[in-house]
Amino acid sequence: MKYEIRFSGSGGQGVITASVILGAAAALHDGKNVIQSQSYGPEARGGATKADVIISDAKIRYPKARHIDYLVSLTQKAAVKFIKTLKKGGVVIIDSDFVDLPDSPDHRIYRLPMTSSSIAKFNRTTTLNVIALGAFAEVAGLVSADAVKKAVLDNSPAGFEEMNIASLDMGRELARAAKKN
Amino acid sequence: MKYEIRFSGSGGQGVITASVILGAAAALHDGKNVIQSQSYGPEARGGATKADVIISDAKIRYPKARHIDYLVSLTQKAAVKFIKTLKKGGVVIIDSDFVDLPDSPDHRIYRLPMTSSSIAKFNRTTTLNVIALGAFAEVAGLVSADAVKKAVLDNSPAGFEEMNIASLDMGRELARAAKKN
Repeated sequence: MKYEIRFSGSGGQGVITASVILGAAAALHDGKNVIQSQSYGPEARGGATKADVIISDAKIRYPKARHIDYLVSLTQKAAVKFIKTLKKGGVVIIDSDFVDLPDSPDHRIYRLPMTSSSIAKFNRTTTLNVIALGAFAEVAGLVSADAVKKAVLDNSPAGFEEMNIASLDMGRELARAAKKN
Repeated sequence: MKYEIRFSGSGGQGVITASVILGAAAALHDGKNVIQSQSYGPEARGGATKADVIISDAKIRYPKARHIDYLVSLTQKAAVKFIKTLKKGGVVIIDSDFVDLPDSPDHRIYRLPMTSSSIAKFNRTTTLNVIALGAFAEVAGLVSADAVKKAVLDNSPAGFEEMNIASLDMGRELARAAKKN
């Protein structure tokens, strides 16, 4: 099985970090083949940042994401831009405090209030990317919970471990709540 | 012009972060086309981590690094493994406190005492990756000094800005000293 995941948002929201962590979780802790990449063209300065992860049981022949299975978008601009790259039957996870997309028979949308939940609990939004990672991990179930947790801890600066794990859990909880609806 | 750069070392040394920063510097601040990627296969758990950056003025057609122009290696294991991927005429930058490679007519080697310099000045080695980035930037001259500095600051957690800029400068100084020899 092979899956393509695209994290997107604006610069500074940490979508690259979320992708690096996801890639490390799947590769180093779950033993998958992974390619994690960011490709910057002339549009990169326009404010819609993306970072891709390909996770596969087999060797990955073509290293570029082309048929996205899971799209995570933290800004409207990124959501509108990259929804076109989602394959039919794909899944979208958005921060519903800032993003909305119309319902479509072609994909399922998880609308999660990430920013407002983060402000309510942490009084800040600096770990929005980790919340999004937790939401993705819960929705997709592609990577073991233990692997994701280990990779988050490996990538946490000293003193930020607890905050990051709490953010990961918050993302999972938001996804679980949305799954019930 | 198109260049392929490979940072390598062991897990936890921050070679991915160095590559992400280099890619962002070239793309977001210098306006280049960039693909930055990490590919993890079964060997990823073996301790030789690599992260690649392709920098080009033109659109990058093939996203995988194949003919490395600049190899940065922070461990002997990584150096021995990835020297094979360096193209003829390429440049190697190594932490000479832990790595050595034999001279060869096929490439130039910069042997820089990164770890011992870092310990002497900072009493730690947590920013070895940024020292290596500064050394690469100085040796290659592919990315403007201002772009690299901005990208380092963009990627510094609060409170670590000064330490990271000092590390970048240290890498540049080590490279300049080696160039004179």
